Amino acid sequence: MSSIGTLFRVTLFGESHGPGVGAVVEGVPAGTKVDLDAMRHELARRRPGQSKLSTQRKEEDEPEILSGVLHGAATGAPLTILIRNTDVDSRPYDATRDLPRPGHADFTAWAKWGAARDHRGGGPFSARLTAPLVAAGALARRILGGVRIAGHVVAAGGIEVPRELTFEQILKADAHPTRCADPKTADLIEHAIMRARSEADSIGGVVECRAEGVPAGWGGPGSAGLESELGRAMFAIPAAKGVEFGAGFRAAGMRGSAHNDPFEVDAAGKITTRTNHAGGILGGISTGMPIVFRVAFKPVASLPRPQDTVNLSTKKPAVIETKGRHDPCVVPRAVPIVEAAAACVLADLKLLAAADPPGGNR
Amino acid sequence: MSSIGTLFRVTLFGESHGPGVGAVVEGVPAGTKVDLDAMRHELARRRPGQSKLSTQRKEEDEPEILSGVLHGAATGAPLTILIRNTDVDSRPYDATRDLPRPGHADFTAWAKWGAARDHRGGGPFSARLTAPLVAAGALARRILGGVRIAGHVVAAGGIEVPRELTFEQILKADAHPTRCADPKTADLIEHAIMRARSEADSIGGVVECRAEGVPAGWGGPGSAGLESELGRAMFAIPAAKGVEFGAGFRAAGMRGSAHNDPFEVDAAGKITTRTNHAGGILGGISTGMPIVFRVAFKPVASLPRPQDTVNLSTKKPAVIETKGRHDPCVVPRAVPIVEAAAACVLADLKLLAAADPPGGNR
Amino acid sequence: MSSIGTLFRVTLFGESHGPGVGAVVEGVPAGTKVDLDAMRHELARRRPGQSKLSTQRKEEDEPEILSGVLHGAATGAPLTILIRNTDVDSRPYDATRDLPRPGHADFTAWAKWGAARDHRGGGPFSARLTAPLVAAGALARRILGGVRIAGHVVAAGGIEVPRELTFEQILKADAHPTRCADPKTADLIEHAIMRARSEADSIGGVVECRAEGVPAGWGGPGSAGLESELGRAMFAIPAAKGVEFGAGFRAAGMRGSAHNDPFEVDAAGKITTRTNHAGGILGGISTGMPIVFRVAFKPVASLPRPQDTVNLSTKKPAVIETKGRHDPCVVPRAVPIVEAAAACVLADLKLLAAADPPGGNR
Amino acid sequence: MSSIGTLFRVTLFGESHGPGVGAVVEGVPAGTKVDLDAMRHELARRRPGQSKLSTQRKEEDEPEILSGVLHGAATGAPLTILIRNTDVDSRPYDATRDLPRPGHADFTAWAKWGAARDHRGGGPFSARLTAPLVAAGALARRILGGVRIAGHVVAAGGIEVPRELTFEQILKADAHPTRCADPKTADLIEHAIMRARSEADSIGGVVECRAEGVPAGWGGPGSAGLESELGRAMFAIPAAKGVEFGAGFRAAGMRGSAHNDPFEVDAAGKITTRTNHAGGILGGISTGMPIVFRVAFKPVASLPRPQDTVNLSTKKPAVIETKGRHDPCVVPRAVPIVEAAAACVLADLKLLAAADPPGGNR
Repeated sequence: MSSIGTLFRVTLFGESHGPGVGAVVEGVPAGTKVDLDAMRHELARRRPGQSKLSTQRKEEDEPEILSGVLHGAATGAPLTILIRNTDVDSRPYDATRDLPRPGHADFTAWAKWGAARDHRGGGPFSARLTAPLVAAGALARRILGGVRIAGHVVAAGGIEVPRELTFEQILKADAHPTRCADPKTADLIEHAIMRARSEADSIGGVVECRAEGVPAGWGGPGSAGLESELGRAMFAIPAAKGVEFGAGFRAAGMRGSAHNDPFEVDAAGKITTRTNHAGGILGGISTGMPIVFRVAFKPVASLPRPQDTVNLSTKKPAVIETKGRHDPCVVPRAVPIVEAAAACVLADLKLLAAADPPGGNR
Repeated sequence: MSSIGTLFRVTLFGESHGPGVGAVVEGVPAGTKVDLDAMRHELARRRPGQSKLSTQRKEEDEPEILSGVLHGAATGAPLTILIRNTDVDSRPYDATRDLPRPGHADFTAWAKWGAARDHRGGGPFSARLTAPLVAAGALARRILGGVRIAGHVVAAGGIEVPRELTFEQILKADAHPTRCADPKTADLIEHAIMRARSEADSIGGVVECRAEGVPAGWGGPGSAGLESELGRAMFAIPAAKGVEFGAGFRAAGMRGSAHNDPFEVDAAGKITTRTNHAGGILGGISTGMPIVFRVAFKPVASLPRPQDTVNLSTKKPAVIETKGRHDPCVVPRAVPIVEAAAACVLADLKLLAAADPPGGNR
Repeated sequence: MSSIGTLFRVTLFGESHGPGVGAVVEGVPAGTKVDLDAMRHELARRRPGQSKLSTQRKEEDEPEILSGVLHGAATGAPLTILIRNTDVDSRPYDATRDLPRPGHADFTAWAKWGAARDHRGGGPFSARLTAPLVAAGALARRILGGVRIAGHVVAAGGIEVPRELTFEQILKADAHPTRCADPKTADLIEHAIMRARSEADSIGGVVECRAEGVPAGWGGPGSAGLESELGRAMFAIPAAKGVEFGAGFRAAGMRGSAHNDPFEVDAAGKITTRTNHAGGILGGISTGMPIVFRVAFKPVASLPRPQDTVNLSTKKPAVIETKGRHDPCVVPRAVPIVEAAAACVLADLKLLAAADPPGGNR
Repeated sequence: MSSIGTLFRVTLFGESHGPGVGAVVEGVPAGTKVDLDAMRHELARRRPGQSKLSTQRKEEDEPEILSGVLHGAATGAPLTILIRNTDVDSRPYDATRDLPRPGHADFTAWAKWGAARDHRGGGPFSARLTAPLVAAGALARRILGGVRIAGHVVAAGGIEVPRELTFEQILKADAHPTRCADPKTADLIEHAIMRARSEADSIGGVVECRAEGVPAGWGGPGSAGLESELGRAMFAIPAAKGVEFGAGFRAAGMRGSAHNDPFEVDAAGKITTRTNHAGGILGGISTGMPIVFRVAFKPVASLPRPQDTVNLSTKKPAVIETKGRHDPCVVPRAVPIVEAAAACVLADLKLLAAADPPGGNR
């Protein structure tokens, strides 16, 4: 179904060109402070039109709380967030209703739902649905307390950050419009984005996310594991086509002797690992080291150039030229989305761990 | 929880050194033929000790049906499979109960469950639990009818298959003990595995899986999507650390104009795409093109050499030398496991699609 | 969690005195007509202030569709309904925040959520949340097609309908403000309600509901059964304290020889039962006979008279006199609610049966 | 699906005449003592053949633990219980495969699953599946610690216990073969059972269950409520046709002024209610008073006399005379089953409450 989480459960709804988008968030503990400014801050980070690098669609993205909050705190009941669509122009989509855009869900929405589908701007497949996810993420962060989550762009258009960055460096990724935390690479990526735009093209990229402060013992074996739960949530983000944890695909080329993270005791007497190729996860359960994962995003499918398609009614070849407003590269805006999805999953695992408290480090 | 699927739901249970491993499989349509030989065939493909490349632990892996089958066909009720553990030697694990093996779940199991955990051979984190998954996969294949699923090893120890293989070539992957379908690469990988073994080391690798015959329209937006459901199931396989669909991480370096798959009409009048960078999935829904994905496995963590660890009781540095029987490379045996997990997810999506039949290609 | 259903899944949200109440409805098949007038009709049946028998709180109950609908039909994506609270007067509740009303959830909400709870008018425990359930029920009825669902009041204030009514009689229950379909009993019940009101008191009652046209084969064994699913949904209605199917509690006093419904073949050649003590359900699965069940509602807890309570802050005895607007008897308004809950459950079971089509009557 | 519970989740499997019956129990906290003798004790209470009042089918009902336990304690992983069927005689059922027994699921199993169904002795609809439920209940009781759960027979064959019994009296219900705790009524019920048997007939009855020691604050609004969760679990018990809480159906005939339970402060300074018409539940949440509910069971459908049915193949009228071994009254054996189902639900709610600790009584 359309939900993530067992105890902290987020159900998204809405469409790109309907009345709005929103989320029902269940499991917010009673008394949790609901900080609308924190929510607005995350929504602003996700919002298009922040820089010359992204689309100029203007959305106010003002979250309206429909339920579950009283006097600024969660009541314990389902918490509903609604974000109205205020700058909707559906006209470009009506003319091309029968012309599925390559790389978009237009064709598969038709295959699944036929004529009844909402064809306007991606309908329920739109990245617009990540707005309420980001709002829910702000709630999740509050639940997580001491856990800090930060993402940054580590690759785009074939350009990669050539070194591992510290968590403090990653925290400053917002300083650059690309959200790449390595200044030199950031400039190269910015250049690549501008060039793609000037060539009526787009590029993809990779977002890395780290969560610091997750204690050992969250998660579980099999499909209850951190990789399963985080992986599921990440692949629910539009345009995500790859997810890897720790050394990830690179691990596939490593020797066990190099990949295994030896255990040691740190200065505080806590058991930890010397390296973190595991990305903070062993057997689906957190080790206490930073959770580290990367999400690969395909290049934006909407291109302001003619592309080959097929007319769904006539079954004849056709050409479509997307007229909507779209970013040439989605990854800078994907950073707060990946963080939010991670926060939601981790908040759920924190509540699950509270129901069956970790036993080892006691 | 420990289940995958909504209608075709698989719940795994068991431990490496307990009485056995098994699965409760709900949603097998009444009358589905339960072919024990097909189940045994898949279990044999997964079983260790098949070649000099893998551990010599001998398991009979005979599936016992505890419920849900009468006269060789599913009755419609929950179908339970039990596979007894017959060659269990737990002694090596008792001596090292306080010494977590690097790269294993020993430490995190202790962190989560404390002294009560089953420490023997990975307990519920053992790859042994993939045996009932493989048995469930045989049921899922039967439900899928015309859908064909095949996996193969595309990389191991840093050696990669240098070209894309046809589905017919992939179907022959079992011919080589590495399950690499490209003969030259297969020999190189076999050599790498043998060398790793001789050096008391291990290597990781990548399994690619394709599903042919999935019609357009299975799956759904967001977390109901094919990537989310397949990703969740793949990350539930022990040692999986990366999953990518279609062009995957490579897509992150591509231009949209190159990545977008143009639509066209095939000879049979069906709408299809010229290329398949999307891996057969747009917006979480199948396009009708082959579903293509890859799973990265880390190198086997158990190494027959001394490794640094920490004694959980004394919190002092210690050294562990794994005495159990382990493969130097898991990916050849991972092929039928990845296929089985994919079959289970796709069978679920087929049943879900039957409840709300695809509308577009009508 | 706060949802009912597996494929047709309804998640309710909202509070009595917050911005509004609503529902996210997943699984509405694409193309299902969304008839706002049908929704309004059901909401009007549920609405207070329809007659002298019920509270004069005026609510417009205009359903706003926030997602999942285009051009009057369901798109297949989650369908969200919002009903604003327009006639909210929270002042009476602020003064009595520390004084839990006997028979209400005021005390248990405090026990569960403490000071953060929404204390106003029952918060999320309010019968106001049945408004979006009723709206969802209108969608469910559309999915159910030929299945007809009708409820009526069979008892209130100790007065019972003395005979079994035909389905056609039940369909006319709305003709009387009590929704009792037996005119004589209806008048007696109306009198009992008026007397209870004049004595600053309230009465309870029983709603019977029948569903005609459910084919044999919906449901399943154990907790997947019709009784489990319908029971769960009915007990989620505020003030419901008993549910029984067919002969129900009366069956407990019967002999098997009298209770068993003998099978026979009807004029159309269909296997049916001579009697229907089973209420159309055997083994959790529909028999093809009418589904029949009854829901007992306790008397309305809010009384315009002083009642003994305890001050939550001081832990001292106190007296509360409820000032809100409340019905002296809830059962007439409960009829469309019970029907809606039944429709939602049956729509879910219809979709589940479509995924695994019934096999016997083929 | 076939499971109950969110965190403490019980999935039943098996058939009356297959290899065995069992349960996968997820969410047993690591370290929970798994007392096989306690399990055997509950199984013995449920077992047929204990007295002249019940069938002479002899089952050893020895629970085998297949997973999740080490050295007598739960490991935290899914815990699987298998109970082999040892005294299976399927021959009587093969001859009557086409003759559905009135009042049984034979017909509906055929309607749902057709020829593939397991027709032997009720297949998955058999009360035999309550054996693993009772075993799971023993685990749940251990998790519940101080909560005491006891059931007793309050009515059978039209004979009712005429007064309310104390919890201490109820705890002694096992002393009489009828499990009626009121000696005089017990003898009358025993007589009624014997007479029904001698007349080749059967009777139904009502089991009342109480849970003492549940603190205020477990459960939640709507379908997360105690009535919904307990109701769903109770209706999953074969032959259950009615469930009521507190005053239940009797409440429907009461005045609010008589039904409302006034709050007061007890000697220990705890807020409590003077009466308990609510059965310990307000708004789906426990009040801290005893949870009280009753389950109505229909008379046993299997009768050793000719009954009218229809031949499923020929669609002609037929007569069936059940030859299997069956109790003339199920309610004495239903007592431990109802208790077990209640224990499972309450253990789940206890774990859920631990994830979001109650706030009011702090």
